[in-house]
Amino acid sequence: MISKKFEKKLERYRSIINETIFQELESRRPKSLYEPIIYFLKGGGKRLRGILLLLVVESLSKKPPKNFLQQAIAIELLHNFTLIHDDIMDNSVKRHNKPTLHVKYDLSTAILSGDVLLSIAYEFLMKNLQVNKPQVIEEFTRALTIVCEGQALDKEFELRKNVTINDYFEMISKKTGALIESICRIGALLTLAERKVIKELGKFGLYLGIAFQLQDDLLDLTGEVKKFGKPKGNDLVEGKKTYIILKALQTARGKHVNEIRKLIEKKGIKPEQVDDFIDMLENLGIFDDTKKEIDKYFNLARESLQNISNSKNLNNLYQFAHKVLNRDF
Amino acid sequence: MISKKFEKKLERYRSIINETIFQELESRRPKSLYEPIIYFLKGGGKRLRGILLLLVVESLSKKPPKNFLQQAIAIELLHNFTLIHDDIMDNSVKRHNKPTLHVKYDLSTAILSGDVLLSIAYEFLMKNLQVNKPQVIEEFTRALTIVCEGQALDKEFELRKNVTINDYFEMISKKTGALIESICRIGALLTLAERKVIKELGKFGLYLGIAFQLQDDLLDLTGEVKKFGKPKGNDLVEGKKTYIILKALQTARGKHVNEIRKLIEKKGIKPEQVDDFIDMLENLGIFDDTKKEIDKYFNLARESLQNISNSKNLNNLYQFAHKVLNRDF
Repeated sequence: MISKKFEKKLERYRSIINETIFQELESRRPKSLYEPIIYFLKGGGKRLRGILLLLVVESLSKKPPKNFLQQAIAIELLHNFTLIHDDIMDNSVKRHNKPTLHVKYDLSTAILSGDVLLSIAYEFLMKNLQVNKPQVIEEFTRALTIVCEGQALDKEFELRKNVTINDYFEMISKKTGALIESICRIGALLTLAERKVIKELGKFGLYLGIAFQLQDDLLDLTGEVKKFGKPKGNDLVEGKKTYIILKALQTARGKHVNEIRKLIEKKGIKPEQVDDFIDMLENLGIFDDTKKEIDKYFNLARESLQNISNSKNLNNLYQFAHKVLNRDF
Repeated sequence: MISKKFEKKLERYRSIINETIFQELESRRPKSLYEPIIYFLKGGGKRLRGILLLLVVESLSKKPPKNFLQQAIAIELLHNFTLIHDDIMDNSVKRHNKPTLHVKYDLSTAILSGDVLLSIAYEFLMKNLQVNKPQVIEEFTRALTIVCEGQALDKEFELRKNVTINDYFEMISKKTGALIESICRIGALLTLAERKVIKELGKFGLYLGIAFQLQDDLLDLTGEVKKFGKPKGNDLVEGKKTYIILKALQTARGKHVNEIRKLIEKKGIKPEQVDDFIDMLENLGIFDDTKKEIDKYFNLARESLQNISNSKNLNNLYQFAHKVLNRDF
């Protein structure tokens, strides 16, 4: 379903986002502030969020998507600000197989790099912003606040023993879903789309974000796609309360309950226990449950698109959803 | 020169800023994110930057300053965001005699509290913002970027041996001056002031900010006013390259040069050496030099105000400058 043409489009959008970002950052001083950011951004990243914004405006407007490049970059910089600070909070030492910013440089540099990246995100958001200015800035800021709240919940869950599946969905809706929701809404606002389109595209983004996070949790264990720089079952070793673990706790009976409780209460298992634990989850049918849940949110996202009429080319957004959910069929 | 009436006005502005901030924050969830921020903001702070914005709009407009309360709060929250993150970067354990946020809670909480505070600052900036919207947001964002650059220079200077007096002025212009400059410019933008007024008020703010920072450096040593939570000569113990130290290095001859070089290269002196070091600086005439420098910038600030005609009540701004520079005459 994902055409070569579409793949090439993504590649083109990625290139132009990167070129413009680096052109901007390389001229800035002091070097001690901007070099670490360039290091971080050159380390990798698919720029999927910036690309999504360009796909949304392309679907809704006859104007060239390049007209909205500055806003796509704003989204990417906001996302990378969260990554830099999350890496500190999560004690992550590698990203894309390279040392994280606070490891490569130091804590102060990583904090300040994130801060200024957020400021530059707002600079880009304002550039060449022609319509719905206050609405776009409010939407962007709303997403930023909610993403911080989602990260706070995620950190809170590390310390709490009683996290429910509902709690988990609230957390990923905020930490991962809200930004993708806002990207779609901002794309709609930038093209003066009507109320209903803004709403449905927002729902598309939110559901896609939830499906994407569930997929991410699943890939950590089933490893159908190699996650850069993280060994298989990393979430189990860290004792993360993902949907998979919470669903397993709900489903399991007898001795399995104790094993899962132990993972939660002792905050993780040993790397050598990972394979047995994955077998248990498989036997409990949790991976199938998770795939069903991903399907559910994927279908909700698709229905939101179907509720929109008069869109020039929503096929781009379908393809994007397939692409990020690794559904190459 | 500072009237009782003016002091009462400041107190009134401070109260209304605080009330509105706490009302907003106390209703927010999750508690794990917002309680630490409330702790930090209740710890102290004179809200001078928010008050300055209200004084500027009061000087230029017949509208009640309360109409611009949201923007004053935005400024305060931006400032407090920088304090929370600076405390981490500077390894400060106390502020206003209370544990700093990363000490009272933990590193992750402090990083995330700062982040969301910045986001809420943008939320407030947009609230009830009637005129010059893009210009106000651009000015606010410009200040944010420059403040980060100033902090980067400050951290860079800690590692560099060859910092000049010019470098120092560049750093404090960015780290302290830029925000106060922007407060004044934003106040002017909010009241639809003409170009020349925006420009002169901006200069007033920048010069006032520089004078304020020089005064702050001086008070660390002369202790005419007790700095909360910091012992006298703290900057010397930390080996900070303030104007005072850089000027002393330029002025000193013979063995004094070595003593100052040692402070710079060994990154500080012992607390028991502080009194002798202060005597040396006094004898070299550095305190008088610094006072002259403060006078110079105070006068530049005053001249900027004098270049503005038709202002209803610039006397408020004169009084504010006197107040923050502890010139109670």
